Amino acid sequence: MADLHPPQINDYPTTERSRVRRSPNRGSHARADVHAILDASPLCHVGYVINGAPYVTPTLHWREGDHVYWHGSAASRFLRAAEDMPVCLTCSLMDGYVLARSAFNHSVNYRSAMVFGTARLVEDVEEKADALRRFIENLFPGRWDSLRPMTSQEVKATAVLRMGIDEATAKIRNGPPGDIDEADFPVWAGVLPVRSHLAPVEAAPGLPDGIELPEPLAALIQSGRIR
Amino acid sequence: MADLHPPQINDYPTTERSRVRRSPNRGSHARADVHAILDASPLCHVGYVINGAPYVTPTLHWREGDHVYWHGSAASRFLRAAEDMPVCLTCSLMDGYVLARSAFNHSVNYRSAMVFGTARLVEDVEEKADALRRFIENLFPGRWDSLRPMTSQEVKATAVLRMGIDEATAKIRNGPPGDIDEADFPVWAGVLPVRSHLAPVEAAPGLPDGIELPEPLAALIQSGRIR
Repeated sequence: MADLHPPQINDYPTTERSRVRRSPNRGSHARADVHAILDASPLCHVGYVINGAPYVTPTLHWREGDHVYWHGSAASRFLRAAEDMPVCLTCSLMDGYVLARSAFNHSVNYRSAMVFGTARLVEDVEEKADALRRFIENLFPGRWDSLRPMTSQEVKATAVLRMGIDEATAKIRNGPPGDIDEADFPVWAGVLPVRSHLAPVEAAPGLPDGIELPEPLAALIQSGRIR
Repeated sequence: MADLHPPQINDYPTTERSRVRRSPNRGSHARADVHAILDASPLCHVGYVINGAPYVTPTLHWREGDHVYWHGSAASRFLRAAEDMPVCLTCSLMDGYVLARSAFNHSVNYRSAMVFGTARLVEDVEEKADALRRFIENLFPGRWDSLRPMTSQEVKATAVLRMGIDEATAKIRNGPPGDIDEADFPVWAGVLPVRSHLAPVEAAPGLPDGIELPEPLAALIQSGRIR
Protein backbone atom coordinates (compact mmCIF):
# COMPACT_ATOMS: atom_id res chain seq x y z
CA MET A 1 0.00 0.00 0.00
CA ALA A 2 1.67 3.19 -1.19
CA ASP A 3 2.12 6.17 1.09
CA LEU A 4 1.13 9.63 -0.07
CA HIS A 5 3.44 11.83 -2.07
CA PRO A 6 4.72 15.04 -0.45
CA PRO A 7 3.29 18.33 -1.78
CA GLN A 8 4.74 19.32 -5.13
CA ILE A 9 4.58 22.26 -7.46
CA ASN A 10 2.24 20.58 -9.96
CA ASP A 11 -0.31 19.31 -7.46
CA TYR A 12 -3.99 19.99 -7.98
CA PRO A 13 -4.90 23.29 -6.33
CA THR A 14 -6.05 23.31 -2.72
CA THR A 15 -9.44 24.95 -2.84
CA GLU A 16 -12.35 25.50 -0.53
CA ARG A 17 -14.01 22.53 -2.22
CA SER A 18 -11.10 20.11 -2.19
CA ARG A 19 -9.21 21.01 0.98
CA VAL A 20 -8.94 18.03 3.31
CA ARG A 21 -10.35 19.05 6.66
CA ARG A 22 -10.67 15.74 8.50
CA SER A 23 -7.38 13.90 9.12
CA PRO A 24 -5.41 16.16 6.74
CA ASN A 25 -2.35 13.93 7.23
CA ARG A 26 -4.23 11.34 5.20
CA GLY A 27 -4.93 13.73 2.33
CA SER A 28 -3.05 14.80 -0.75
CA HIS A 29 -3.59 16.86 -3.87
CA ALA A 30 -0.65 15.21 -5.67
CA ARG A 31 -1.45 14.17 -9.21
CA ALA A 32 0.45 10.91 -8.69
CA ASP A 33 -1.78 9.97 -5.73
CA VAL A 34 -5.04 10.96 -7.42
CA HIS A 35 -4.15 9.22 -10.67
CA ALA A 36 -2.98 6.02 -8.95
CA ILE A 37 -6.32 5.64 -7.17
CA LEU A 38 -8.39 6.48 -10.26
CA ASP A 39 -6.40 3.86 -12.16
CA ALA A 40 -6.58 1.19 -9.46
CA SER A 41 -10.37 1.24 -9.17
CA PRO A 42 -12.43 0.21 -12.19
CA LEU A 43 -15.59 1.39 -10.44
CA CYS A 44 -16.43 4.97 -9.52
CA HIS A 45 -19.46 6.76 -8.12
CA VAL A 46 -20.55 9.89 -9.92
CA GLY A 47 -22.55 12.55 -8.11
CA TYR A 48 -25.01 14.70 -10.03
CA VAL A 49 -27.47 17.35 -8.90
CA ILE A 50 -30.90 17.18 -10.52
CA ASN A 51 -33.51 19.68 -9.37
CA GLY A 52 -31.38 20.47 -6.36
CA ALA A 53 -31.20 16.87 -5.15
CA PRO A 54 -28.18 14.56 -5.22
CA TYR A 55 -27.92 11.35 -7.23
CA VAL A 56 -25.02 8.95 -6.88
CA THR A 57 -24.62 6.40 -9.65
CA PRO A 58 -22.01 3.67 -10.03
CA THR A 59 -20.20 3.34 -13.31
CA LEU A 60 -16.85 2.36 -14.81
CA HIS A 61 -14.54 5.21 -15.65
CA TRP A 62 -11.18 5.55 -17.28
CA ARG A 63 -8.51 8.22 -17.10
CA GLU A 64 -6.32 9.80 -19.74
CA GLY A 65 -3.89 12.35 -18.39
CA ASP A 66 -5.85 14.95 -16.48
CA HIS A 67 -9.24 13.85 -17.83
CA VAL A 68 -11.66 11.19 -16.68
CA TYR A 69 -14.23 9.56 -18.96
CA TRP A 70 -17.35 7.57 -18.34
CA HIS A 71 -20.16 6.41 -20.58
CA GLY A 72 -23.72 5.20 -20.64
CA SER A 73 -26.90 5.23 -22.64
CA ALA A 74 -27.41 8.33 -24.73
CA ALA A 75 -30.89 8.46 -23.19
CA SER A 76 -29.64 8.43 -19.58
CA ARG A 77 -31.07 11.28 -17.52
CA PHE A 78 -27.90 11.26 -15.42
CA LEU A 79 -25.57 11.65 -18.35
CA ARG A 80 -27.76 14.36 -19.83
CA ALA A 81 -27.93 16.10 -16.44
CA ALA A 82 -24.15 16.02 -16.17
CA GLU A 83 -23.49 18.02 -19.35
CA ASP A 84 -21.90 21.35 -18.44
CA MET A 85 -22.68 20.80 -14.78
CA PRO A 86 -20.39 20.45 -11.78
CA VAL A 87 -19.73 16.80 -11.10
CA CYS A 88 -18.00 14.95 -8.29
CA LEU A 89 -16.53 11.59 -9.26
CA THR A 90 -15.25 9.44 -6.42
CA CYS A 91 -13.27 6.18 -6.46
CA SER A 92 -12.85 4.22 -3.27
CA LEU A 93 -10.97 1.04 -2.55
CA MET A 94 -11.51 -0.57 0.81
CA ASP A 95 -8.28 -2.24 1.85
CA GLY A 96 -9.19 -3.50 5.31
CA TYR A 97 -10.95 -3.15 8.62
CA VAL A 98 -8.85 -1.60 11.38
CA LEU A 99 -9.76 -3.00 14.78
CA ALA A 100 -8.57 -0.92 17.70
CA ARG A 101 -8.88 -1.25 21.49
CA SER A 102 -11.72 1.29 21.59
CA ALA A 103 -14.71 1.69 19.31
CA PHE A 104 -13.61 5.26 18.65
CA ASN A 105 -10.27 4.21 17.16
CA HIS A 106 -11.75 1.62 14.84
CA SER A 107 -11.18 2.60 11.26
CA VAL A 108 -10.87 1.41 7.71
CA ASN A 109 -7.81 1.20 5.52
CA TYR A 110 -8.77 2.71 2.21
CA ARG A 111 -7.70 4.68 -0.83
CA SER A 112 -10.13 7.21 -2.22
CA ALA A 113 -9.96 9.93 -4.82
CA MET A 114 -12.57 12.64 -5.16
CA VAL A 115 -12.36 14.67 -8.35
CA PHE A 116 -14.28 17.77 -9.32
CA GLY A 117 -14.88 19.22 -12.70
CA THR A 118 -17.41 20.06 -15.35
CA ALA A 119 -18.54 17.23 -17.60
CA ARG A 120 -18.80 17.58 -21.37
CA LEU A 121 -20.43 15.20 -23.79
CA VAL A 122 -18.07 13.94 -26.47
CA GLU A 123 -20.11 14.95 -29.52
CA ASP A 124 -17.81 14.09 -32.41
CA VAL A 125 -18.67 10.59 -33.62
CA GLU A 126 -15.12 9.52 -34.40
CA GLU A 127 -13.80 10.96 -31.17
CA LYS A 128 -16.53 9.12 -29.29
CA ALA A 129 -15.83 5.80 -31.01
CA ASP A 130 -12.14 6.22 -30.32
CA ALA A 131 -12.77 6.96 -26.65
CA LEU A 132 -14.82 3.76 -26.39
CA ARG A 133 -12.01 1.84 -28.06
CA ARG A 134 -9.55 3.16 -25.48
CA PHE A 135 -11.97 2.23 -22.69
CA ILE A 136 -12.05 -1.39 -23.82
CA GLU A 137 -8.34 -1.51 -24.59
CA ASN A 138 -7.49 -0.05 -21.23
CA LEU A 139 -9.36 -2.86 -19.48
CA PHE A 140 -8.56 -5.68 -21.88
CA PRO A 141 -5.47 -4.95 -24.01
CA GLY A 142 -5.77 -6.30 -27.53
CA ARG A 143 -9.48 -7.03 -27.34
CA TRP A 144 -10.86 -4.25 -29.52
CA ASP A 145 -9.57 -5.55 -32.84
CA SER A 146 -10.98 -9.02 -32.13
CA LEU A 147 -14.53 -7.76 -31.59
CA ARG A 148 -17.42 -7.54 -33.99
CA PRO A 149 -16.98 -3.93 -35.22
CA MET A 150 -19.09 -1.23 -33.62
CA THR A 151 -21.99 0.04 -35.74
CA SER A 152 -22.82 3.71 -36.19
CA GLN A 153 -26.14 3.02 -34.44
CA GLU A 154 -24.26 1.70 -31.40
CA VAL A 155 -22.03 4.76 -31.31
CA LYS A 156 -25.13 6.95 -31.53
CA ALA A 157 -26.84 5.11 -28.67
CA THR A 158 -23.85 5.62 -26.40
CA ALA A 159 -23.02 8.82 -24.56
CA VAL A 160 -19.46 9.48 -23.49
CA LEU A 161 -18.67 12.12 -20.91
CA ARG A 162 -15.26 13.71 -20.59
CA MET A 163 -14.23 15.80 -17.63
CA GLY A 164 -11.06 17.75 -16.99
CA ILE A 165 -9.93 17.31 -13.41
CA ASP A 166 -10.09 20.86 -12.05
CA GLU A 167 -9.65 19.92 -8.40
CA ALA A 168 -8.98 16.63 -6.72
CA THR A 169 -8.19 15.07 -3.40
CA ALA A 170 -6.67 11.70 -2.59
CA LYS A 171 -7.11 10.20 0.82
CA ILE A 172 -5.29 7.13 2.05
CA ARG A 173 -5.29 5.38 5.37
CA ASN A 174 -3.11 2.37 5.83
CA GLY A 175 -1.33 0.55 8.59
CA PRO A 176 -2.30 -0.69 12.05
CA PRO A 177 -4.69 0.95 14.52
CA GLY A 178 -3.40 4.27 15.82
CA ASP A 179 -3.97 3.52 19.49
CA ILE A 180 -0.56 2.13 20.43
CA ASP A 181 -0.87 4.15 23.67
CA GLU A 182 -3.62 1.77 24.70
CA ALA A 183 -1.75 -1.39 23.67
CA ASP A 184 -1.98 -2.72 27.25
CA PHE A 185 -5.76 -2.97 27.05
CA PRO A 186 -6.51 -6.70 26.85
CA VAL A 187 -8.34 -6.98 23.54
CA TRP A 188 -7.16 -8.17 20.16
CA ALA A 189 -6.29 -5.34 17.78
CA GLY A 190 -5.06 -5.32 14.23
CA VAL A 191 -6.12 -5.22 10.61
CA LEU A 192 -8.41 -7.53 8.65
CA PRO A 193 -7.20 -6.90 5.09
CA VAL A 194 -9.81 -6.96 2.32
CA ARG A 195 -8.71 -8.01 -1.16
CA SER A 196 -10.43 -8.27 -4.53
CA HIS A 197 -9.42 -10.73 -7.20
CA LEU A 198 -10.61 -12.39 -10.36
CA ALA A 199 -12.25 -15.78 -9.93
CA PRO A 200 -12.13 -18.48 -12.65
CA VAL A 201 -13.73 -17.34 -15.90
CA GLU A 202 -17.18 -18.45 -16.98
CA ALA A 203 -17.27 -18.96 -20.75
CA ALA A 204 -20.50 -17.82 -22.41
CA PRO A 205 -23.00 -20.57 -23.24
CA GLY A 206 -22.87 -21.38 -26.93
CA LEU A 207 -19.24 -20.40 -27.33
CA PRO A 208 -18.13 -22.33 -30.43
CA ASP A 209 -15.58 -25.10 -29.96
CA GLY A 210 -12.00 -24.07 -30.49
CA ILE A 211 -12.37 -20.48 -29.29
CA GLU A 212 -9.76 -20.17 -26.60
CA LEU A 213 -9.20 -17.41 -24.10
CA PRO A 214 -6.88 -14.93 -25.83
CA GLU A 215 -3.41 -14.57 -24.38
CA PRO A 216 -3.73 -11.07 -22.83
CA LEU A 217 -6.94 -12.10 -21.04
CA ALA A 218 -5.34 -15.30 -19.83
CA ALA A 219 -2.45 -13.24 -18.45
CA LEU A 220 -4.86 -10.82 -16.74
CA ILE A 221 -6.69 -13.71 -15.14
CA GLN A 222 -3.44 -15.38 -14.18
CA SER A 223 -2.43 -12.20 -12.37
CA GLY A 224 -5.76 -12.23 -10.50
CA ARG A 225 -5.79 -8.45 -10.65
CA ILE A 226 -9.08 -6.72 -11.34
CA ARG A 227 -7.43 -4.01 -13.34
CA MET B 1 -26.08 -14.30 -7.27
CA ALA B 2 -29.73 -13.78 -6.38
CA ASP B 3 -32.28 -12.76 -8.96
CA LEU B 4 -34.64 -9.89 -8.27
CA HIS B 5 -37.88 -10.31 -6.40
CA PRO B 6 -41.14 -9.78 -8.31
CA PRO B 7 -43.13 -6.62 -7.49
CA GLN B 8 -44.96 -6.86 -4.16
CA ILE B 9 -47.43 -4.81 -2.25
CA ASN B 10 -44.90 -3.54 0.30
CA ASP B 11 -42.24 -2.43 -2.18
CA TYR B 12 -40.76 1.03 -1.98
CA PRO B 13 -42.83 3.42 -4.07
CA THR B 14 -41.99 3.94 -7.72
CA THR B 15 -41.42 7.67 -8.00
CA GLU B 16 -40.08 10.08 -10.54
CA ARG B 17 -36.81 9.99 -8.62
CA SER B 18 -36.48 6.26 -8.18
CA ARG B 19 -38.09 4.82 -11.30
CA VAL B 20 -35.65 2.67 -13.24
CA ARG B 21 -35.45 3.99 -16.78
CA ARG B 22 -32.47 2.19 -18.23
CA SER B 23 -32.76 -1.60 -18.41
CA PRO B 24 -35.89 -1.67 -16.21
CA ASN B 25 -35.76 -5.48 -16.24
CA ARG B 26 -32.68 -5.15 -14.03
CA GLY B 27 -34.44 -2.89 -11.52
CA SER B 28 -36.57 -3.49 -8.46
CA HIS B 29 -38.14 -1.53 -5.65
CA ALA B 30 -38.57 -4.63 -3.50
CA ARG B 31 -37.48 -4.14 0.10
CA ALA B 32 -35.83 -7.58 0.07
CA ASP B 33 -33.62 -6.62 -2.88
CA VAL B 34 -32.68 -3.19 -1.55
CA HIS B 35 -31.98 -4.51 1.95
CA ALA B 36 -29.91 -7.46 0.71
CA ILE B 37 -27.59 -5.13 -1.23
CA LEU B 38 -27.29 -2.59 1.59
CA ASP B 39 -26.39 -5.45 3.93
CA ALA B 40 -23.93 -7.12 1.55
CA SER B 41 -21.81 -4.02 1.02
CA PRO B 42 -19.98 -2.54 4.01
CA LEU B 43 -19.04 0.51 1.95
CA CYS B 44 -21.43 3.08 0.55
CA HIS B 45 -21.11 6.41 -1.24
CA VAL B 46 -23.18 9.28 0.10
CA GLY B 47 -24.13 12.18 -2.12
CA TYR B 48 -24.64 15.62 -0.66
CA VAL B 49 -25.34 18.97 -2.24
CA ILE B 50 -23.36 21.90 -0.84
CA ASN B 51 -23.88 25.32 -2.43
CA GLY B 52 -25.53 23.62 -5.37
CA ALA B 53 -22.60 21.33 -6.14
CA PRO B 54 -22.42 17.57 -5.61
CA TYR B 55 -20.05 15.81 -3.21
CA VAL B 56 -19.69 12.05 -3.09
CA THR B 57 -18.00 10.62 -0.01
CA PRO B 58 -17.26 7.00 0.85
CA THR B 59 -18.21 5.73 4.28
CA LEU B 60 -19.40 2.63 6.08
CA HIS B 61 -23.12 2.41 6.71
CA TRP B 62 -25.39 0.02 8.50
CA ARG B 63 -29.09 -0.71 8.16
CA GLU B 64 -31.79 -1.30 10.73
CA GLY B 65 -35.18 -2.06 9.23
CA ASP B 66 -36.09 0.79 6.91
CA HIS B 67 -33.36 3.10 8.17
CA VAL B 68 -29.73 3.49 7.20
CA TYR B 69 -27.08 4.97 9.47
CA TRP B 70 -23.63 6.36 8.92
CA HIS B 71 -21.22 8.29 11.09
CA GLY B 72 -18.23 10.55 11.06
CA SER B 73 -16.57 13.40 12.84
CA ALA B 74 -18.97 15.81 14.52
CA ALA B 75 -17.01 18.56 12.76
CA SER B 76 -17.46 17.08 9.27
CA ARG B 77 -18.86 19.58 6.80
CA PHE B 78 -20.51 16.72 4.92
CA LEU B 79 -22.34 15.38 7.93
CA ARG B 80 -23.42 18.85 8.92
CA ALA B 81 -24.53 19.56 5.36
CA ALA B 82 -26.61 16.37 5.35
CA GLU B 83 -28.83 17.33 8.29
CA ASP B 84 -32.42 17.77 7.09
CA MET B 85 -31.28 17.66 3.48
CA PRO B 86 -32.09 15.23 0.69
CA VAL B 87 -29.42 12.58 0.50
CA CYS B 88 -28.69 9.79 -1.96
CA LEU B 89 -26.82 6.82 -0.50
CA THR B 90 -25.59 4.23 -2.99
CA CYS B 91 -24.05 0.80 -2.43
CA SER B 92 -22.47 -1.02 -5.33
CA LEU B 93 -20.88 -4.43 -5.55
CA MET B 94 -19.04 -5.27 -8.71
CA ASP B 95 -19.43 -8.99 -9.35
CA GLY B 96 -17.67 -9.36 -12.67
CA TYR B 97 -16.75 -8.12 -16.11
CA VAL B 98 -19.04 -9.30 -18.90
CA LEU B 99 -17.15 -9.75 -22.16
CA ALA B 100 -19.35 -9.90 -25.24
CA ARG B 101 -18.67 -10.30 -28.96
CA SER B 102 -19.15 -6.57 -29.55
CA ALA B 103 -17.92 -3.60 -27.53
CA PHE B 104 -21.52 -2.44 -27.23
CA ASN B 105 -22.64 -5.58 -25.41
CA HIS B 106 -19.82 -5.55 -22.90
CA SER B 107 -21.18 -5.04 -19.43
CA VAL B 108 -20.60 -5.52 -15.75
CA ASN B 109 -22.29 -7.89 -13.36
CA TYR B 110 -23.20 -5.86 -10.31
CA ARG B 111 -25.61 -5.27 -7.50
CA SER B 112 -26.41 -1.71 -6.56
CA ALA B 113 -28.89 -0.02 -4.29
CA MET B 114 -29.65 3.67 -4.46
CA VAL B 115 -31.64 5.01 -1.51
CA PHE B 116 -33.18 8.43 -1.06
CA GLY B 117 -34.26 10.12 2.10
CA THR B 118 -33.69 13.00 4.46
CA ALA B 119 -30.88 12.62 6.95
CA ARG B 120 -31.24 13.47 10.63
CA LEU B 121 -28.51 13.78 13.22
CA VAL B 122 -28.98 11.47 16.16
CA GLU B 123 -28.83 14.06 18.93
CA ASP B 124 -29.61 12.04 22.05
CA VAL B 125 -26.32 10.96 23.61
CA GLU B 126 -27.50 7.53 24.74
CA GLU B 127 -29.24 6.86 21.46
CA LYS B 128 -26.08 7.85 19.64
CA ALA B 129 -23.84 5.63 21.78
CA ASP B 130 -26.23 2.74 21.29
CA ALA B 131 -26.26 3.24 17.52
CA LEU B 132 -22.45 3.10 17.49
CA ARG B 133 -22.57 -0.07 19.58
CA ARG B 134 -24.88 -1.66 17.02
CA PHE B 135 -22.58 -0.52 14.20
CA ILE B 136 -19.61 -2.34 15.75
CA GLU B 137 -21.68 -5.38 16.76
CA ASN B 138 -23.14 -5.64 13.30
CA LEU B 139 -19.67 -5.88 11.80
CA PHE B 140 -17.94 -7.83 14.57
CA PRO B 141 -20.41 -9.68 16.77
CA GLY B 142 -19.38 -9.80 20.41
CA ARG B 143 -16.66 -7.17 20.07
CA TRP B 144 -18.29 -4.20 21.80
CA ASP B 145 -18.16 -5.60 25.32
CA SER B 146 -14.49 -6.47 24.95
CA LEU B 147 -13.46 -2.92 24.05
CA ARG B 148 -12.15 -0.11 26.20
CA PRO B 149 -15.43 1.68 27.02
CA MET B 150 -16.37 4.74 24.98
CA THR B 151 -15.89 8.07 26.76
CA SER B 152 -18.47 10.84 26.70
CA GLN B 153 -15.93 12.98 24.85
CA GLU B 154 -15.71 10.34 22.12
CA VAL B 155 -19.48 10.20 21.80
CA LYS B 156 -19.54 13.99 21.56
CA ALA B 157 -16.88 14.02 18.85
CA THR B 158 -18.87 11.58 16.72
CA ALA B 159 -21.86 12.47 14.58
CA VAL B 160 -24.34 9.76 13.67
CA LEU B 161 -26.80 10.28 10.85
CA ARG B 162 -30.00 8.30 10.55
CA MET B 163 -32.13 8.29 7.42
CA GLY B 164 -35.47 6.69 6.77
CA ILE B 165 -35.52 5.08 3.35
CA ASP B 166 -38.26 7.02 1.56
CA GLU B 167 -37.52 5.69 -1.91
CA ALA B 168 -35.09 3.11 -3.15
CA THR B 169 -34.04 1.20 -6.22
CA ALA B 170 -32.08 -2.01 -6.50
CA LYS B 171 -30.38 -2.90 -9.74
CA ILE B 172 -28.82 -6.25 -10.46
CA ARG B 173 -27.16 -7.60 -13.53
CA ASN B 174 -25.87 -11.13 -13.52
CA GLY B 175 -25.22 -13.96 -15.91
CA PRO B 176 -23.44 -14.25 -19.25
CA PRO B 177 -23.28 -11.68 -22.07
CA GLY B 178 -26.66 -11.05 -23.66
CA ASP B 179 -25.49 -11.44 -27.24
CA ILE B 180 -26.21 -15.12 -27.77
CA ASP B 181 -27.49 -14.16 -31.25
CA GLU B 182 -23.92 -13.31 -32.16
CA ALA B 183 -22.43 -16.49 -30.66
CA ASP B 184 -20.97 -17.48 -34.04
CA PHE B 185 -18.66 -14.49 -34.07
CA PRO B 186 -15.19 -15.93 -33.48
CA VAL B 187 -14.13 -14.18 -30.27
CA TRP B 188 -14.02 -15.40 -26.70
CA ALA B 189 -17.00 -14.24 -24.62
CA GLY B 190 -17.94 -14.84 -21.03
CA VAL B 191 -17.66 -13.47 -17.53
CA LEU B 192 -14.60 -12.63 -15.46
CA PRO B 193 -16.02 -12.85 -11.94
CA VAL B 194 -14.66 -10.42 -9.33
CA ARG B 195 -14.65 -11.50 -5.70
CA SER B 196 -13.68 -9.81 -2.44
CA HIS B 197 -12.41 -11.70 0.56
CA LEU B 198 -10.56 -11.25 3.83
CA ALA B 199 -6.81 -11.86 3.69
CA PRO B 200 -4.81 -13.13 6.70
CA VAL B 201 -5.06 -10.80 9.71
CA GLU B 202 -2.25 -8.45 10.68
CA ALA B 203 -2.02 -8.21 14.47
CA ALA B 204 -1.24 -4.72 15.78
CA PRO B 205 2.37 -4.09 16.77
CA GLY B 206 2.74 -4.20 20.55
CA LEU B 207 -0.15 -6.59 21.05
CA PRO B 208 0.62 -8.21 24.42
CA ASP B 209 1.49 -11.90 24.44
CA GLY B 210 -1.41 -14.21 25.08
CA ILE B 211 -4.09 -12.06 23.41
CA GLU B 212 -5.65 -14.36 20.87
CA LEU B 213 -8.09 -13.56 18.11
CA PRO B 214 -11.55 -13.88 19.67
CA GLU B 215 -13.72 -16.72 18.43
CA PRO B 216 -16.30 -14.68 16.45
CA LEU B 217 -13.54 -12.83 14.59
CA ALA B 218 -11.75 -16.09 13.87
CA ALA B 219 -14.99 -17.47 12.45
CA LEU B 220 -15.51 -14.36 10.31
CA ILE B 221 -12.00 -14.64 8.95
CA GLN B 222 -12.39 -18.37 8.42
CA SER B 223 -15.47 -17.63 6.30
CA GLY B 224 -13.45 -15.15 4.25
CA ARG B 225 -16.55 -12.99 3.94
CA ILE B 226 -16.14 -9.26 4.21
CA ARG B 227 -19.43 -8.87 6.00
